[in-house]
Amino acid sequence: MIIIFKGKGKGKTSAAIGTALRALYHNRKVIIIQFLKTGSSGEMKLLNKYLSKNLTIHSFGKKAFTNEGSLNKKDYSTVKKAILETSRAIDNKPFMIILDELLVALKFKLVEEGDILNIMKQCRKINVHLIITGRGASKSITNKADLVTEMKNIKHPYEKGIKAVKGIDF
Amino acid sequence: MIIIFKGKGKGKTSAAIGTALRALYHNRKVIIIQFLKTGSSGEMKLLNKYLSKNLTIHSFGKKAFTNEGSLNKKDYSTVKKAILETSRAIDNKPFMIILDELLVALKFKLVEEGDILNIMKQCRKINVHLIITGRGASKSITNKADLVTEMKNIKHPYEKGIKAVKGIDF
Repeated sequence: MIIIFKGKGKGKTSAAIGTALRALYHNRKVIIIQFLKTGSSGEMKLLNKYLSKNLTIHSFGKKAFTNEGSLNKKDYSTVKKAILETSRAIDNKPFMIILDELLVALKFKLVEEGDILNIMKQCRKINVHLIITGRGASKSITNKADLVTEMKNIKHPYEKGIKAVKGIDF
Repeated sequence: MIIIFKGKGKGKTSAAIGTALRALYHNRKVIIIQFLKTGSSGEMKLLNKYLSKNLTIHSFGKKAFTNEGSLNKKDYSTVKKAILETSRAIDNKPFMIILDELLVALKFKLVEEGDILNIMKQCRKINVHLIITGRGASKSITNKADLVTEMKNIKHPYEKGIKAVKGIDF
């Protein structure tokens, strides 16, 4: 099963993590690879603390939020390393692989669409469940997925100038 | 902060749970009340097992998926009990309350819109963060929330006749 959580709304990574919990409850192995993100958010630390038996988290990124203007050569090589780690993850044949914010890397052209389609194809071939999150899936990626949910932003407190809240946003 | 995860797409409950993990990591108390749902899904059992120190889960429901045709008197009294439990939860002033599938109860007219608006008002007054999930939020509820994400169903494997998968859907 290939699942995509895309869109501008809040809840993409949380939804992926929540799904991972189901797999972990059934004692299945899960590998999370974070693109352009550190593993410093609360939920990742908590998962690492209590559920590391069946869960591996690899984080490739920096603390600052990545935007198109701030991209540099280092981001390319970071994403390249994350893609390499994805290949290794596939070789391990876990129950589930989560590629968190991979679609952001695609949007910033730090990864080719063909690479993502290839990952999807490989996972499907060996029955590894794959969850991909981030903004902006291409048509081909949507077509090749089984389940696609768009997290649509209807209303967001940042628009009102409210800052991120500890325990909710990180 | 009042957060609504609504819509027909997959990921609403998972997103709420994923957000709860952040709060739990920061050692904050979270109360989850499930409307028209048993606590038998994997993620709830896992949370209960590892994180019960700061987390309380109350499940009010039946195993079978509730739909409009199958509603009966018992569903009304079950939802009433869940609303009562919500009042108790508010009295406890936790960091976060999650009312999972409350909007489904609203859709089926098992709860009044006024009751939900009242809960939102009470939580805001005492600074309890509130997450409400389910299909179909009304305009007034959307207006009174701070953050609203619509989980839009773009593609779902059930449409192709694929059944729920253990470790992903439950």
